[in-house]
Amino acid sequence: MSDVLKIFKIGGGIIDDASQLGLFLTELARVAGPKILVHGGGKGASQMLQDLGIEPNMVQGRRITDAATLDIVTMFYAGKTNKQIVALLQQRGVNALGLSGADGNVIRATKRPVKDIDYGFVGDLNAESVNSELVVQLLRANVTPVFCAITHDGQGQLLNTNADTIASVLACALTSAYRVELHFCFEKDGVLSDISDDQSVIKNIVPKQYQQLKAAGVIAAGMVPKLDNAFAALAAGVDKVVIENALKINEPVKTVLCRS
Amino acid sequence: MSDVLKIFKIGGGIIDDASQLGLFLTELARVAGPKILVHGGGKGASQMLQDLGIEPNMVQGRRITDAATLDIVTMFYAGKTNKQIVALLQQRGVNALGLSGADGNVIRATKRPVKDIDYGFVGDLNAESVNSELVVQLLRANVTPVFCAITHDGQGQLLNTNADTIASVLACALTSAYRVELHFCFEKDGVLSDISDDQSVIKNIVPKQYQQLKAAGVIAAGMVPKLDNAFAALAAGVDKVVIENALKINEPVKTVLCRS
Repeated sequence: MSDVLKIFKIGGGIIDDASQLGLFLTELARVAGPKILVHGGGKGASQMLQDLGIEPNMVQGRRITDAATLDIVTMFYAGKTNKQIVALLQQRGVNALGLSGADGNVIRATKRPVKDIDYGFVGDLNAESVNSELVVQLLRANVTPVFCAITHDGQGQLLNTNADTIASVLACALTSAYRVELHFCFEKDGVLSDISDDQSVIKNIVPKQYQQLKAAGVIAAGMVPKLDNAFAALAAGVDKVVIENALKINEPVKTVLCRS
Repeated sequence: MSDVLKIFKIGGGIIDDASQLGLFLTELARVAGPKILVHGGGKGASQMLQDLGIEPNMVQGRRITDAATLDIVTMFYAGKTNKQIVALLQQRGVNALGLSGADGNVIRATKRPVKDIDYGFVGDLNAESVNSELVVQLLRANVTPVFCAITHDGQGQLLNTNADTIASVLACALTSAYRVELHFCFEKDGVLSDISDDQSVIKNIVPKQYQQLKAAGVIAAGMVPKLDNAFAALAAGVDKVVIENALKINEPVKTVLCRS
């Protein structure tokens, strides 16, 4: 129970920049011990939809994952992006293995119920979504699982799923076998107390302080869902959540969220 | 050493027909014991290249896998086709897990050397290409690996690779842990002694007889590379090679190739 598992999540910004992605993966290869990478999408899928003349299906300003869109995002996320990352990690000596949620039934989702909007083939996750047994077996075999943001419903349907949420539910589920650290990596050095000052990284945030910062409008709007998610993971047993620069994961500058 | 491992290979014809693919996967789910599926491509990738206005790069009548083509085939084979098959097998109660050769470094290839033609990003395999340890671990965990025809060179480069060859080298490598049966599935019931008569399935062929049939021109030209491959696998220790109809894998009609 005492091994530390580090789960890293990277988003579209870094995936779209081959040179930054390479630098991040080099840093990731330097991280010792069991680790998992979860990656989001990037702009490639949208560009390809446009190139193929597939109009974005928008309802009330939200993009709908219709069948054509699901095909393209599956190809991009599970195909191109996932396999390129795996090959680049292999090059760096990391025994990476790419997974969608369908593979080994590791993440089973539920198609989002239709209320006001039918989001299409989008998967929602809950605490029971992760089949952690196989993930633990892979980690114990020194494999580094690399998750894309595609899951399935167990009935043959693939589902487009939020990568931050995948990272969080994996982190929570794997607390059964590890002390888990969840690392959200992006282009800033951490949570900033002054959005216009990249040096204003808040070193530690506890839940009470987070509520105060949020109320005072100090936390950038885009960070709120990510941090809500992060504190929920902490409450569910994840040891530590870190918000950090994807290119500086081995440097001390970062924001560490703590349970108390 | 006495468990029988069955490796099935399906080609593009069945992948392009969703209803036939579903029927095949239902039959595959009925096959007991450890099993592996290897799948080829299908016409989707070529169609998408055409839709994107990417001209086929042909040299001396052979298609070259340039960088743009590799991107698209990786998306199709490792992304769409592989994940759809995995999700459909999960639906059928089979704990499938999709793999390219890069995943877990299970199949490492060498970029085809340039002689008369530079085939581009095409991978050649040899007897040392397969890292069978992880594949055996997955099989022992009741996982059914599903291989697409994409491999890597260990230096970060993905490579387009012949699916028949992947099936053969996997079969040969896994003889270290299993008695291996290699099943090449296609649209006919087996090797025909009369190409115009679908009922003329040859039940058994031993190497000597194969040479005679080949010399007499009885074996259809398209079958020759497949059968050469198959007999090579037999010679390398594979227990049995079967040529059969993808929709009739659980029926007795088929051609069984035997070592003697």
